[in-house]
Amino acid sequence: MIILKLGGSLITDKSKQFAVREDVLERLAEEIKESSKEELIIVHGGGSFGHPIASKYNLQEGFKNKEQIDGVVETRRAMNELSRSVINAFHEHKLPVVAIQPSANITCKAGRIDDIDTGVIKKFLELGTIPVLFGDVVLDKELGFCILSGDQIVTFLAENFKADKVILAADVDGVYDKNPQKFDGAKLITEIKSTDDGILDTLKTRDGDVTGGIKGKIEELVLLAKKGVPSQVINAMEPGRLKKALRGEEVIGTVVR
Amino acid sequence: MIILKLGGSLITDKSKQFAVREDVLERLAEEIKESSKEELIIVHGGGSFGHPIASKYNLQEGFKNKEQIDGVVETRRAMNELSRSVINAFHEHKLPVVAIQPSANITCKAGRIDDIDTGVIKKFLELGTIPVLFGDVVLDKELGFCILSGDQIVTFLAENFKADKVILAADVDGVYDKNPQKFDGAKLITEIKSTDDGILDTLKTRDGDVTGGIKGKIEELVLLAKKGVPSQVINAMEPGRLKKALRGEEVIGTVVR
Repeated sequence: MIILKLGGSLITDKSKQFAVREDVLERLAEEIKESSKEELIIVHGGGSFGHPIASKYNLQEGFKNKEQIDGVVETRRAMNELSRSVINAFHEHKLPVVAIQPSANITCKAGRIDDIDTGVIKKFLELGTIPVLFGDVVLDKELGFCILSGDQIVTFLAENFKADKVILAADVDGVYDKNPQKFDGAKLITEIKSTDDGILDTLKTRDGDVTGGIKGKIEELVLLAKKGVPSQVINAMEPGRLKKALRGEEVIGTVVR
Repeated sequence: MIILKLGGSLITDKSKQFAVREDVLERLAEEIKESSKEELIIVHGGGSFGHPIASKYNLQEGFKNKEQIDGVVETRRAMNELSRSVINAFHEHKLPVVAIQPSANITCKAGRIDDIDTGVIKKFLELGTIPVLFGDVVLDKELGFCILSGDQIVTFLAENFKADKVILAADVDGVYDKNPQKFDGAKLITEIKSTDDGILDTLKTRDGDVTGGIKGKIEELVLLAKKGVPSQVINAMEPGRLKKALRGEEVIGTVVR
């Protein structure tokens, strides 16, 4: 079973609020369909739907004041809108996708998943559907609420369901030794070994991603690799790469093992 | 705390598939806002979004064959579409609504609610938001999946949360002794006592409602009244009645106690 994360930067245009990349969603749906991968769980990020509201209301800090409740309500509405776009695009391509709202299924404690009904996700998978989860604002036993990133959901489910592989479909070729948008000499790291903790220090956090940016993503994947689930970061803006990765064929990217 | 059920026949046009009554939703939002009722849970039916698909694939009988999975996927998509219409209309009127997907939160056994994370619903209520649930196709430990009616969710939550009252907002004045669409002499029953079980036999089932029609609804409310939670069926197609009912003012309808 593969867990596929669709990055928020991939499926939305982060430069505009509430801007879905419909053409990208269509192509991703086709590639998933053509890969003929049967056991699949999809998790997507919030992109320009979740992050700007979460930042505006400081939701990542948990409950501080009543004004934030507007932010919780707006974030929930926005994430359901993005989920709808993904579900509709994928269902039009005959993928048997079923949205599963994380905030109805998961409660956190201090920002980490605490209570989760994995049985629901597992049974929807066993029925032959593709469960689709997403980053969301969820209840938190200590903080009141918190921002649960798609990445955390991915690693939790991958470990819990003993996934064969995690594919993180991003809008960059993989992980670089420096930010390639700022430094000309940035080199793609094709392999990260979970035993080499030093690698994390060399990675920089991107601006404006309240779920931790690329550094946070890799940290989650390194923790996961330590538990035996390999993962792969690929650039799914490049046509064909997602299909190859799903089929287990060689593709440009960063492997974490 | 009040639990408000918005009937599928009220918020959708059952004569056309996927037809939301936007004007009705707008007015209901205004009436709820004007009632200034703070502690509220809303549950809505499936109407022309859920029932036709559920009937087409015989989902109410549980898992019989793989073709039904298309029906599960279509129903989930359709119910999220209807939920979106309700959430967006209500949120535009500044109601702090948060959709909670039943199929992500509830598992049934032989068609009745078995596992449910009421903590999530309760905490969203305590945060000051209005949780909004709906009839849905959910997983079932014996049947594979089942159709969980909004009515069953209402009575379960009303009992569990010891609600002050349940309001069932319908498109008819209340419960009649005969079907008023077929019989001229049908009389409105203004009060049903839960101790008078014979009343149920006199009520007829409407066609095409896989969740049991008006008889099923009243049966659930009678069971609830036996546990101490009164309820009220009102015609929310008539402007002002929902607001009155929420405020506890006198209004035409059927009271179950």
